[in-house]
Amino acid sequence: MRTNNVQRLHAEGRPIINGWLSIGSGYAAELIAHQGFDSVTVDCQHGMIGFETALVMLQAVSSTPSTPLVRPSCLDPAQIMRFLDAGSFGIICPMISTADDARALVDACRYPPIGGRSFGPGRGLLYGGADYPTSANATITVLAMIETTAGFENLEAILAVEGIDGIYVGPNDLSLSMGFSPTNESSEPTVRAAISEALRMTRAKGKIAGIFCSDGDAAAMRISQGFHLVTPGNDATLLKRVMGQAVASSRAGIA
Amino acid sequence: MRTNNVQRLHAEGRPIINGWLSIGSGYAAELIAHQGFDSVTVDCQHGMIGFETALVMLQAVSSTPSTPLVRPSCLDPAQIMRFLDAGSFGIICPMISTADDARALVDACRYPPIGGRSFGPGRGLLYGGADYPTSANATITVLAMIETTAGFENLEAILAVEGIDGIYVGPNDLSLSMGFSPTNESSEPTVRAAISEALRMTRAKGKIAGIFCSDGDAAAMRISQGFHLVTPGNDATLLKRVMGQAVASSRAGIA
Amino acid sequence: MRTNNVQRLHAEGRPIINGWLSIGSGYAAELIAHQGFDSVTVDCQHGMIGFETALVMLQAVSSTPSTPLVRPSCLDPAQIMRFLDAGSFGIICPMISTADDARALVDACRYPPIGGRSFGPGRGLLYGGADYPTSANATITVLAMIETTAGFENLEAILAVEGIDGIYVGPNDLSLSMGFSPTNESSEPTVRAAISEALRMTRAKGKIAGIFCSDGDAAAMRISQGFHLVTPGNDATLLKRVMGQAVASSRAGIA
Amino acid sequence: MRTNNVQRLHAEGRPIINGWLSIGSGYAAELIAHQGFDSVTVDCQHGMIGFETALVMLQAVSSTPSTPLVRPSCLDPAQIMRFLDAGSFGIICPMISTADDARALVDACRYPPIGGRSFGPGRGLLYGGADYPTSANATITVLAMIETTAGFENLEAILAVEGIDGIYVGPNDLSLSMGFSPTNESSEPTVRAAISEALRMTRAKGKIAGIFCSDGDAAAMRISQGFHLVTPGNDATLLKRVMGQAVASSRAGIA
Amino acid sequence: MRTNNVQRLHAEGRPIINGWLSIGSGYAAELIAHQGFDSVTVDCQHGMIGFETALVMLQAVSSTPSTPLVRPSCLDPAQIMRFLDAGSFGIICPMISTADDARALVDACRYPPIGGRSFGPGRGLLYGGADYPTSANATITVLAMIETTAGFENLEAILAVEGIDGIYVGPNDLSLSMGFSPTNESSEPTVRAAISEALRMTRAKGKIAGIFCSDGDAAAMRISQGFHLVTPGNDATLLKRVMGQAVASSRAGIA
Amino acid sequence: MRTNNVQRLHAEGRPIINGWLSIGSGYAAELIAHQGFDSVTVDCQHGMIGFETALVMLQAVSSTPSTPLVRPSCLDPAQIMRFLDAGSFGIICPMISTADDARALVDACRYPPIGGRSFGPGRGLLYGGADYPTSANATITVLAMIETTAGFENLEAILAVEGIDGIYVGPNDLSLSMGFSPTNESSEPTVRAAISEALRMTRAKGKIAGIFCSDGDAAAMRISQGFHLVTPGNDATLLKRVMGQAVASSRAGIA
Repeated sequence: MRTNNVQRLHAEGRPIINGWLSIGSGYAAELIAHQGFDSVTVDCQHGMIGFETALVMLQAVSSTPSTPLVRPSCLDPAQIMRFLDAGSFGIICPMISTADDARALVDACRYPPIGGRSFGPGRGLLYGGADYPTSANATITVLAMIETTAGFENLEAILAVEGIDGIYVGPNDLSLSMGFSPTNESSEPTVRAAISEALRMTRAKGKIAGIFCSDGDAAAMRISQGFHLVTPGNDATLLKRVMGQAVASSRAGIA
Repeated sequence: MRTNNVQRLHAEGRPIINGWLSIGSGYAAELIAHQGFDSVTVDCQHGMIGFETALVMLQAVSSTPSTPLVRPSCLDPAQIMRFLDAGSFGIICPMISTADDARALVDACRYPPIGGRSFGPGRGLLYGGADYPTSANATITVLAMIETTAGFENLEAILAVEGIDGIYVGPNDLSLSMGFSPTNESSEPTVRAAISEALRMTRAKGKIAGIFCSDGDAAAMRISQGFHLVTPGNDATLLKRVMGQAVASSRAGIA
Repeated sequence: MRTNNVQRLHAEGRPIINGWLSIGSGYAAELIAHQGFDSVTVDCQHGMIGFETALVMLQAVSSTPSTPLVRPSCLDPAQIMRFLDAGSFGIICPMISTADDARALVDACRYPPIGGRSFGPGRGLLYGGADYPTSANATITVLAMIETTAGFENLEAILAVEGIDGIYVGPNDLSLSMGFSPTNESSEPTVRAAISEALRMTRAKGKIAGIFCSDGDAAAMRISQGFHLVTPGNDATLLKRVMGQAVASSRAGIA
Repeated sequence: MRTNNVQRLHAEGRPIINGWLSIGSGYAAELIAHQGFDSVTVDCQHGMIGFETALVMLQAVSSTPSTPLVRPSCLDPAQIMRFLDAGSFGIICPMISTADDARALVDACRYPPIGGRSFGPGRGLLYGGADYPTSANATITVLAMIETTAGFENLEAILAVEGIDGIYVGPNDLSLSMGFSPTNESSEPTVRAAISEALRMTRAKGKIAGIFCSDGDAAAMRISQGFHLVTPGNDATLLKRVMGQAVASSRAGIA
Repeated sequence: MRTNNVQRLHAEGRPIINGWLSIGSGYAAELIAHQGFDSVTVDCQHGMIGFETALVMLQAVSSTPSTPLVRPSCLDPAQIMRFLDAGSFGIICPMISTADDARALVDACRYPPIGGRSFGPGRGLLYGGADYPTSANATITVLAMIETTAGFENLEAILAVEGIDGIYVGPNDLSLSMGFSPTNESSEPTVRAAISEALRMTRAKGKIAGIFCSDGDAAAMRISQGFHLVTPGNDATLLKRVMGQAVASSRAGIA
Repeated sequence: MRTNNVQRLHAEGRPIINGWLSIGSGYAAELIAHQGFDSVTVDCQHGMIGFETALVMLQAVSSTPSTPLVRPSCLDPAQIMRFLDAGSFGIICPMISTADDARALVDACRYPPIGGRSFGPGRGLLYGGADYPTSANATITVLAMIETTAGFENLEAILAVEGIDGIYVGPNDLSLSMGFSPTNESSEPTVRAAISEALRMTRAKGKIAGIFCSDGDAAAMRISQGFHLVTPGNDATLLKRVMGQAVASSRAGIA
């Protein structure tokens, strides 16, 4: 089976730079996946993307060196199965708040006897290769999003679930859930302490600690804190910013 | 009929900052059109965009303050008519090299008696308003792309064609056509002289002088040279750049 | 944040005329939203519409004075969140039969601390404006469809749930659920009594009473009964009718 | 090969009621094609429809008793061939102004030795049946749109072209081309005389005389004048009207 | 209401040959449905197909003699309702493991008083006919996929649920669930015995016994065993095979 | 720039097995491109494929070892440019009948100074690599379809046009153009002689001789005749055949 960069880099002790795709376009996905990201995540939760578009984006990413991951809209086993069948090499699942959630997530992502994923890996076979059926359980990365106070409180139990490869902190929702406004790099001591503690616990288990960041500088900071997988902003936000800057720079030419 | 920013700003003596859309996504189009651009151009020549996607993008832009323009794939009257029917308020037509080309372009964009545009302004009516049939000829902007040596040589005649509102220099193709490599802001004296001369001639006729630029700084430079309508880079190139920078900044966090 | 016509008109004591979109087409959506409807609802339950199409329709409606609402396929929090992120200013949720259902609906539609909506309002920000994160909870309209006998029996409790802005009677399903054939304006005394009682209870709470109607005349009748939000038929049914009439009128010309 | 209603009804001396599809939606197309139209025309000139959508609409119409026709965006042989390959049983070609135009149209629509249509009838075979290759030339209807003064002046020669089955008057463009505002049922004597004369000449040749009409009443009038094929308005206009009426009727309920 | 081939053939004691569609293309669907299949199933579980594409495929199949069925991604009542509204004449529901699952499935597929399906049969009416509302409950086929050990163990109870028309064995998942590798025609005695026993029990109840098979030969074998509905491979697998063979045969020409 | 298999294999004196894609589906395209084809051609002439779908198919093929080619609908320079910009590594252009046609084809496919292709290789850069602008002229394969008697008569002159890499015989249209029924492997001596002569002439010029074939056996025969590039049937025909066979084999199980 084709190598999963997330696994390979983590095994080598190297951080993973993960791109975030919320614009529903195969061309944008392909273009971004060529910019040096180790993995890219098709965001089917907050992204403006349905199944047909996600499929096209996964195909587009498949022609690049980047590994395709998907964030489903929720812990919906059938939806998760479909994204895996469509060739995603990993799932970043929102709103995992209990060990039961984590077990359900593993069940959705792994074939029996580990889980209950139904068999029929259409595009998975094409992208992954002929040994997909026997290798998928070992190759697919499963990350639980920790983004609620409950998720943080139950983190020990979540991390203990076999088949969970790591966590992915959703700082906006975590902050909101703790009673603050949604921010990626919160200055609130409570939020900062929770993120630090989540990082420590995950590293202690030898699992992957991932987190969403505002941009490249914030991602660099998270890497230096010890996070393994970082997302330096999403495509829409960065596109908005660079287009706004282009307008501003242009107007500077007006006498 | 709804105001065309290109016309309004030109009449006020103010430059027009025009965004360039080559990613086939209504969401990206809408997002970009909200960043302060006076107009945005759906690029159906080099953009990865067919009619269905262009329609969606025109609809998305319609909910923003930006005026939607389209670059068709070529001087194809039926195609141009369809983009106008779909609500485009202007046409930036590639490869206008002769006065005959310019006349054909006007013929495609204007209703009789000025031109031969067929009547049936489906979405034009919705976006433009009930007076579209009588006001379209006066409201729609027609720009001829000058991007070949022939186009440059025939510029006087092209500018003399009634119904042509101005030009839009395609510096990549012009440079290529003159025997140099494709560049937006060429340092070749021949190319620079041609662009300056085209600007001068167009201004002398009181028509709009537009040009594609690499980015905001280049656009500012073109405005200071006297260009009226500038495009500070396209969405794909700028997205590529900002995503590449995000990767680089992230990697800076690796010890 | 952009004004929600449903809220504004209700506050002013004026009825809301709501269009119903079941044809999956951005052009049809835009065209309909321009005909004077205060709001239009993209029907993702019985309409022939998936997420990608709903997104396009919401964008198309955004360029009109009409406020976009969505009916999701069911009480699925992740789906509801996605339609809100895509810019819907309200949810008309099918099959709300208990106070628990109503609470789950509010939880899906409101950010913490009121509910558990996850943060990431992609298109919401573009359509709603920069204050979307702080204003969305107060601006988005949440209507519970009362269309089962259980829903009718539990109406008092449903109306008592904080964050529910009102109800929307589904007369077809209500009739069917009570043992009669599906009809919008039933002549069955039991059904009529239930609808009247639901109206009375909702008005008593000061909440919005909405209802689906066969056509404009039926809608006028419901307004005169005291309903606040009425839907005068759906696009497919009305299009079917007018096209059938065009055929009939044409045939009248045959000697 | 499956029967072409246009041919069958014309041979029987009965008029053809033709629906007009400008909304790009397979569902709307199917719904309309079920309302009693003998044929329906997918309008790829002024309709908001690209090839992919036209294909879906042709498939949707194929499940109804109505015969599918297409209006291409212009006299483009490759485009016409593609719509025929996609299963259209007729072409209503815009802007036929000379006998040369008419000959080029026949050439695009007919296989050798009559014309130069390239062989590869993908969906034509599925919809038409196994004898499509040998029967298509005899079964497909070719109508030339007469909608310019030139087209009217050259009508005799156009009608003389073998392989042209008839004409289809575009009254909006004809009116515009004659110097009047675009109207379907013009009261201008010049326009009325031209339409009458075109009808007379076409009937004299035993060919099909078709025309676009504002609505069913206008279509009935045209039938009584002797037109064989009438279009009682387009879907978008009729949908707009019926939706506007639904709003008006609803508002009548406001005290 | 239009006849459901599955019901008709089963009543006549004749087997049903069912095609399997996992390629998301209306053209492929139409083409396949013309090859003699009694029914075809749009696979929205493992197929690369979202709602929009499924709708197009159902429309395409509607123009053929084949009856359209859908496999939803899971036992999701709202999703099932949508496919029925879109014109599917049957549901093959994955992972039915208990009598409760079977009851929920019936509830999703049948209108009151039998089930709880919400009323609004958009395309169902077009494809099925005007009596759809009263005939759908009797015409739509509901098959429960038996593909887990639990499903097999609870088969008696599942078959006893009123409204379940039969079963459809998923041999890949059943095999996997029993601890073996996924195979359609397993040689494992345990799996073979389970399939035989499921067949026997289903026939004893007079219900439809269906099964997925690797290809036509395997399907012939299952028919001779007594299965009523067989699927001779899926489109993707068969296309893969025939294209691989074309390459191999071509290479045989290389000296 | 990424290697073009057509060029590489031809240079090595090895035949090229080319797949043919007429089903508009990225999944089918990807699946087929994985079956050992050296190249695959997206057929935008007779295939049921518009620009948006072709783009998706080109992206899907890009993740396989197969080289993507496109057949445009006709000799339309703007259309050809768009497919090249979208990443096609070759053009098989229909209906090249004169040296002028051939020159126009080269002009459309090559950048100045060889031709007049406009600069803006969006996806070409992503798929081809950063040196695309300077390497495209040398890497892109241009094949002229010889499929009319005129094309055959002018073959000498067509082959003499610089920038034409070879021919691709369209035996169906050639046969039809010569007065026979459309067949891939005609038994008519005139047609057979023309094909042999075209092969001889092309080989004499050291250019690529390609041809469409009914299936793998026919392709093997053409290779043994000396053709360099063969297409063993198209996807739709082969899928039709294999699905029909699956039905037939299944029915063999009926006692």
